[in-house]
Amino acid sequence: MGEFDFIERLLKPLAAGFPGAMGLMDDAALVDVPTGCELVIAKDGMVEGVHFLPDDPPASIAGKLLRVNLSDLAAMGAEPLGYLTVIARSPRCDDAWLAGFTRGLKEDQALFGCHLLGGDTVSTPGPLSLSLTILGTVPHGAALRRSGAVPGDRVWVSGTLGDAAMGLRILQGLAVAEDDSWPLIDRYRTPRPRLTLGVRLRGLATAAIDVSDGLVADLGHVAAASRVAAVVEIAKVPLSRRAAGLPGARDAALTGGDDYELLFTAPTSADREIEALAAELALPLTVIGEISAGDGVRVLDTGGVELSTPRSGWRHF
Amino acid sequence: MGEFDFIERLLKPLAAGFPGAMGLMDDAALVDVPTGCELVIAKDGMVEGVHFLPDDPPASIAGKLLRVNLSDLAAMGAEPLGYLTVIARSPRCDDAWLAGFTRGLKEDQALFGCHLLGGDTVSTPGPLSLSLTILGTVPHGAALRRSGAVPGDRVWVSGTLGDAAMGLRILQGLAVAEDDSWPLIDRYRTPRPRLTLGVRLRGLATAAIDVSDGLVADLGHVAAASRVAAVVEIAKVPLSRRAAGLPGARDAALTGGDDYELLFTAPTSADREIEALAAELALPLTVIGEISAGDGVRVLDTGGVELSTPRSGWRHF
Repeated sequence: MGEFDFIERLLKPLAAGFPGAMGLMDDAALVDVPTGCELVIAKDGMVEGVHFLPDDPPASIAGKLLRVNLSDLAAMGAEPLGYLTVIARSPRCDDAWLAGFTRGLKEDQALFGCHLLGGDTVSTPGPLSLSLTILGTVPHGAALRRSGAVPGDRVWVSGTLGDAAMGLRILQGLAVAEDDSWPLIDRYRTPRPRLTLGVRLRGLATAAIDVSDGLVADLGHVAAASRVAAVVEIAKVPLSRRAAGLPGARDAALTGGDDYELLFTAPTSADREIEALAAELALPLTVIGEISAGDGVRVLDTGGVELSTPRSGWRHF
Repeated sequence: MGEFDFIERLLKPLAAGFPGAMGLMDDAALVDVPTGCELVIAKDGMVEGVHFLPDDPPASIAGKLLRVNLSDLAAMGAEPLGYLTVIARSPRCDDAWLAGFTRGLKEDQALFGCHLLGGDTVSTPGPLSLSLTILGTVPHGAALRRSGAVPGDRVWVSGTLGDAAMGLRILQGLAVAEDDSWPLIDRYRTPRPRLTLGVRLRGLATAAIDVSDGLVADLGHVAAASRVAAVVEIAKVPLSRRAAGLPGARDAALTGGDDYELLFTAPTSADREIEALAAELALPLTVIGEISAGDGVRVLDTGGVELSTPRSGWRHF
């Protein structure tokens, strides 16, 4: 399928519900930001063999590309508006692949309430290379930031951690697949951006970030931006039953990326409201540590003893 | 240079002048769109070996990436606000290359009045792959569109056409370099986005586009979006003295891309105002044809005879 047909037949329908996209027929898109709102914008890239596996289904690659960007909106407490893509097609992106990829975008944009606004399709002799720019909105001054954590705040995390990293290990043949391990693979391929949680944390959380690099690394970003120290109790870090049964699950929960849960801080006075929110959203929200004066992230084992920083410096799993 | 140093030392300074970029320290950037304005957003990708040559200086690659996107703003009559990048680094992007690339961005963002707002840096085992998202603003309802041309309008173009395509031919060894041919190479490497012209054409032009695919192809986009026909008189298409002296210049002007001049339509009643604008901006603005009822683009040779469509269908030079 040539570039013209790809745009005309597969991409244009994704822009149909957004008048300012002008059917992908103009040089740029026009976006009205509602009065009283700020625009929130982020952009992530994904390269075949680096951020996804060549064999991943095209619809799930599309979904992941959109969802990792939506997760950035969630971490800001923003609501999605639309997105632009650059798709650098490799020779192996045949018609079936393109159809699967755009089907993935179509399903997810319906699920999350956003539209394709524009972008570019190019060819590359190298691996498939993707980028996506996400646009969202947040009421003026209400955005969640990384920089607001203060000593005495609790550190909270949504859902469970380490699942995506264990799923990747299974896909790479580094861990044995069990009969019931597909949900771990699904966690790796199909992030759940915590958009509703992000919106509800406005005015409640003092700082927020999504867990993409890994718990310790991302908590480190919050600590650095807020100029505080953070401590995590390893026994409190929530693991799924499936991940907990596999070797390496604790390490995956501490340093594995790709979980796209929200990590946030809040004063103790918000405990009850956050617990009520967890019940309402049917989403576990767990206290895993606290913020103090100082800098850096410390991890305490089950006996309260500080774990030494691994040689890798708490890098990506 | 690792990703952390690249961001910290080379990219952060590019975000320093825009508070909403939060020093590239958060999940997303916050952008305030002024009251009464719409956001204008476009995104283009460039791949090494496809959109630029591996030997092109890194600063000129950066400049081209920013400028082709600024040209999309120019075609909408918009003013630049900021940009986001995804840089997929290939193994050969060493420290010197990264320093040159960011120096190019720094110089051009100062020249065009915009800042880096965010993005992503990733690694690729393949060719260097770049994408840039440009943000601009335009007063509500004032954006230039491709779809407003009406029968009787004149077709105008800024500057000269075919220079960039001839410059590329020289770089590829397909045309002989003369002593004074470097300006053609410069036109290929360093587009001049016609931002001031775009802003001044608000309310004056009925349709506009930038010449990136080639005159005939881009006029075809305007004709299709406006549901009209266009005719171009080849003798009127402006060539530079340098390009005119080389074989193939006429073809390059008709079908060569990468000139990034503005192609626009306007009623005859606007002739004087457009001529005065050309004088004021010291930028040639030339009538090359007209709009009529119907569809498609026809090209008339010097005797007024219609040129047959080449087998390539007026594709890229």
